[in-house]
Amino acid sequence: MSRLSLFCFLILVALCNAQSAIDMTHVVSEEDTLVWPGGTKFNHTEIYHGEYVMEDGSSYYVESNQFAQTEHLGTHLDAPAHFNRGSWRVHEIPFKRLMGEACVVDIENRAATDYDAMLMVSDLEAWEETNGQIPDSAIVLMYSGNGKYFGNRTRYFGFPPGVNGDSREDVIHIHFPGLHPEAAEWLVKNRNIYGIGVDTPSTDYGQAPDFPVHQIMAKANIYNLENLANVDKLPARGYMIYAMVHKIKNGSGGPARVFAQPMQSAGSGMPQSKVILTSLTSIVLLCLSNKR
Amino acid sequence: MSRLSLFCFLILVALCNAQSAIDMTHVVSEEDTLVWPGGTKFNHTEIYHGEYVMEDGSSYYVESNQFAQTEHLGTHLDAPAHFNRGSWRVHEIPFKRLMGEACVVDIENRAATDYDAMLMVSDLEAWEETNGQIPDSAIVLMYSGNGKYFGNRTRYFGFPPGVNGDSREDVIHIHFPGLHPEAAEWLVKNRNIYGIGVDTPSTDYGQAPDFPVHQIMAKANIYNLENLANVDKLPARGYMIYAMVHKIKNGSGGPARVFAQPMQSAGSGMPQSKVILTSLTSIVLLCLSNKR
Repeated sequence: MSRLSLFCFLILVALCNAQSAIDMTHVVSEEDTLVWPGGTKFNHTEIYHGEYVMEDGSSYYVESNQFAQTEHLGTHLDAPAHFNRGSWRVHEIPFKRLMGEACVVDIENRAATDYDAMLMVSDLEAWEETNGQIPDSAIVLMYSGNGKYFGNRTRYFGFPPGVNGDSREDVIHIHFPGLHPEAAEWLVKNRNIYGIGVDTPSTDYGQAPDFPVHQIMAKANIYNLENLANVDKLPARGYMIYAMVHKIKNGSGGPARVFAQPMQSAGSGMPQSKVILTSLTSIVLLCLSNKR
Repeated sequence: MSRLSLFCFLILVALCNAQSAIDMTHVVSEEDTLVWPGGTKFNHTEIYHGEYVMEDGSSYYVESNQFAQTEHLGTHLDAPAHFNRGSWRVHEIPFKRLMGEACVVDIENRAATDYDAMLMVSDLEAWEETNGQIPDSAIVLMYSGNGKYFGNRTRYFGFPPGVNGDSREDVIHIHFPGLHPEAAEWLVKNRNIYGIGVDTPSTDYGQAPDFPVHQIMAKANIYNLENLANVDKLPARGYMIYAMVHKIKNGSGGPARVFAQPMQSAGSGMPQSKVILTSLTSIVLLCLSNKR
């Protein structure tokens, strides 16, 4: 019986490893990437596209472009220095802090009907009752369900009916979910996390002109991940987040290729045949050792 | 005896997992980041740094910048479309292909004395004799030892004595290691890899004005990683590479935060205490099951 349960356990491990990495990054483009009201759009310009003819008359095809953008555009990381003088800028964030276990706090039910929904201390307490204490080095993610609206400016920024969100360049009428400042304070005081992240334009909710959550996190050297994609694909815990930000010297933030992969996976890119082979070999070895 | 060896094996697994991730990305800045001769430097401009005073007289600190650059600057990825019309642009590369096992081919000895050293078919064959066949989905890295010169334009681009490398804006005199086109052909024909990478400015060596390696790889939808850092920290194999490129729509390439982590690690950011605890629990369970 114990050998059988061990067998099942190892098969389960092999199956868990078969889960693959999840890209949590929106594509960036001039036409589709929303910018903060008043901000500058992503700029993408051709340098050269076509056959390049050399002196000897031979040629080869080449295409190449340049781009310009604010540090805080699309899926990106806010360095702690963004809202606190002297906190870490992008290149100063210790590399190991760019990865941590995703603790996904789901407020989708409230966010579906309330554009101003906030992640409260009570949400964190409820999460911990179900999932255990938020571990050291975690990245706490708010899941509001709004990630699917990325690309629809009026809905994603939550302009109310009657306000033309597509043309507004002020922040008076923006409404989207974020963390409550008390939840930010609670995390800083009671837990030891590396970052927070949201599937909305900001970790502060829309109606927070002085960005209290950013300020609280910045003073504690905790970074923010904003405009995350595919948060709906993550379970409450068990995945690692990798926040691979453009390594800009003295950056207040930068575009980030964020992804998640199952913890205890043998590297999601590892050929699964190898993972399964390793597990099967272990099983055979165990059976042999038990037989003696 | 078999229980003891199992014990040792599991301890070994736990210790292997204690290895951490390696950042393979150079910092990007206006002052230090080298650009291809004739190219445009990284541009980094302040938008706002200081106290921001609101209408009610209260204020908060904020700093924010914008930047502009070519897609092919610093540690970056060349999409296959860069040198072949119709091949994948950045956003079209399947996400799972951005990760693969690093197969590190060491040509440092030759590169130390020969600025024009190339990675040859014979180097690949010798590597496989020692390390086994290059696996499917691998990322083949050339280690020349030149990564440490990043920041020194004359040495990194290999301008010969008498040529002022700091001011040259043509490519006539550049000399640095790269892959031999025959090695590129061999990889495309005989193996099933996702990408190649180098610790030099280009996967083509300096004296290759028509970029044959780029052309060969582009036609096969294999990407290039250039200006990699810390390749010296990788063993010949056993690490996964994650090439987290800026997800630019229709990009011919983009800045990439590239890192490596040991294969079969339980997510390098996972608290090691947990890895070791898991391993110890397994040992105890095994001992108990053997006792019956």
